[in-house]
Amino acid sequence: MPNSPVTTSYDNLRDFIARCFCSCGMAEGDADRAAGLMARADLIGQDGHGVFRLPQYIRRIQAGGLEVNARICTLQERSATALIDGGNGLGHLVMHHATQLAMQKAKTTGVAWVGARHSNHAGPASLYASMPTEQDMIGIYAAVGSANHMPPWGGTEMLLSTNPIAVCIPSASYPPIILDMATTVAAYGKVKTAAQRGEPIPEGWMINRSGQPLTDPNRASEGFLLPIGGAKGYGLSLIFGLLAGTLNGAAFGREVIDFNADSKTTTNTGHFIIALDIKAFADPKEFKSDVDRIWAQMKSSPRLPGFDSIRLPGERLAKVTRDRIEHGIPLSAALNTALTELAQDLGVAPL
Amino acid sequence: MPNSPVTTSYDNLRDFIARCFCSCGMAEGDADRAAGLMARADLIGQDGHGVFRLPQYIRRIQAGGLEVNARICTLQERSATALIDGGNGLGHLVMHHATQLAMQKAKTTGVAWVGARHSNHAGPASLYASMPTEQDMIGIYAAVGSANHMPPWGGTEMLLSTNPIAVCIPSASYPPIILDMATTVAAYGKVKTAAQRGEPIPEGWMINRSGQPLTDPNRASEGFLLPIGGAKGYGLSLIFGLLAGTLNGAAFGREVIDFNADSKTTTNTGHFIIALDIKAFADPKEFKSDVDRIWAQMKSSPRLPGFDSIRLPGERLAKVTRDRIEHGIPLSAALNTALTELAQDLGVAPL
Repeated sequence: MPNSPVTTSYDNLRDFIARCFCSCGMAEGDADRAAGLMARADLIGQDGHGVFRLPQYIRRIQAGGLEVNARICTLQERSATALIDGGNGLGHLVMHHATQLAMQKAKTTGVAWVGARHSNHAGPASLYASMPTEQDMIGIYAAVGSANHMPPWGGTEMLLSTNPIAVCIPSASYPPIILDMATTVAAYGKVKTAAQRGEPIPEGWMINRSGQPLTDPNRASEGFLLPIGGAKGYGLSLIFGLLAGTLNGAAFGREVIDFNADSKTTTNTGHFIIALDIKAFADPKEFKSDVDRIWAQMKSSPRLPGFDSIRLPGERLAKVTRDRIEHGIPLSAALNTALTELAQDLGVAPL
Repeated sequence: MPNSPVTTSYDNLRDFIARCFCSCGMAEGDADRAAGLMARADLIGQDGHGVFRLPQYIRRIQAGGLEVNARICTLQERSATALIDGGNGLGHLVMHHATQLAMQKAKTTGVAWVGARHSNHAGPASLYASMPTEQDMIGIYAAVGSANHMPPWGGTEMLLSTNPIAVCIPSASYPPIILDMATTVAAYGKVKTAAQRGEPIPEGWMINRSGQPLTDPNRASEGFLLPIGGAKGYGLSLIFGLLAGTLNGAAFGREVIDFNADSKTTTNTGHFIIALDIKAFADPKEFKSDVDRIWAQMKSSPRLPGFDSIRLPGERLAKVTRDRIEHGIPLSAALNTALTELAQDLGVAPL
């Protein structure tokens, strides 16, 4: 019998996720770190990339497709770059490590670029792009998506993923500007949550193999996602795939394993993170008030008919985060049921 | 009386541009360098960003809005970063300098990010992104466009430019993958060339202030360009503007001078270039054959109805370049007339 929808707190959700990981043999420190990042994904409103993915991650650990206590190591290093091997560990742990390393390097060099191979799905891109802001740095993150959902422009073979990019730029008195976007019109996670909620997807997100619009998310396997701006979005996805995948010796193109369909095969997921030290270019205080000025300019623009406000990227995220800190994180009935079943399977206390 | 269309060679075009710059007092070495980059823009098919812009650049020099013998200097430097001041010089000279500096730094550090302020329009983005490939590096370039043509998403005040990005990734036996894209559906240069050719622009490029499609390029001032992917393209334009403009102390938002309408006021144009050394991550030979493999994969995809081939970004550029090396660079009657008049005004030998 399905559970009801439920609302939970960040702390509860994080502790539950950590319990699940620990029960699979993950070291406590790693479990806490990964759980904190995953619960944060839900807190900031990235519902398709938070605890929703937990049953899938656990399935992969149980199937032997993900190393629960991975050894992350540096394969190659220069003063401003590193290539790390994630040891087939959880992407959250690999990219947390990579981002800390990039920040440490950028403190001296001004900018650092750290790439990773043999990683896995790491949740929402903005998690990593926003870490460097703690140290007055700008973060830029990109990844090869964990399943191919898009053909090259004009094609029908799904050789490309949503390959997302996230950039986080701090401001003084407004929320940070956070762009976190798939190079497709919609992320595949949004298609999956729509299916779970029993809602149709808007026209323009997907087409089928004859080029006709596809709006039933349960028939997603019959078609593919569309890139933003036609050939331009295809170009962006290709470039991010080459930089986050191929350059790091990670999977891209036909090598990409569909982690929704296959929990056993190593994904060799690739990502990169750039940390750019604001202090290498400007006084951070002045820069952040300049960002405020730009923020206010955008907001003050007269509006087109049909729009009731101008939004800045990151504004909705900040609002959702405030709401969820105050009122809790809502989980759908289907997700609550899945998590209750997971807790039973693992023999841990439920949410 | 208007001239006829004409076809010219890269060498002729470069020499003509250099003559024009020299006649305005530019030092010979700088004139040759700038002319080479501008003629290259035409050679690679970037018609809106090559010699087409020459009369405008000369007008700006004559009006005192551009320093013909600018002193480019480094304001701030770390091992992997630099902020340079272009001294209000021609963007081509500033960004050539910035790119060389970034490549020199990246040779040691693995990656370098060089930002510039007090620069000017620099022609097509791909010119700079493709320079690092000579040294087995990847180039990434972005700029604040030289006139605002786009409002924030849902707005009507033109606070944003086409803010382009270019990325160049070398391959082994295919042309390099070169993505060179405006964050708008079309670059404004394409609207200008359409106007000069007397051709309408496609629906989807621009809308007017009531939100209706605008297809007459001569009425471009009554509307604005549309971003790719709606709010996503607006987000990208905003981010590139903050990184290429605000972070460098260069103009962005309301500060941007429309260089089409005003030849006198300093533009304070901002750009940045990233050089990423492939050798810091992979063996360049292996990497480039991996890029070949991805290239071949994309090409081999079955096609949607209505497509006769799959294109890679940079493929058309390589084809146009080959054609123009062999058959010359075509200039429209209107452009040929404008250049003949310019030669007369400056008292230099015509093309």
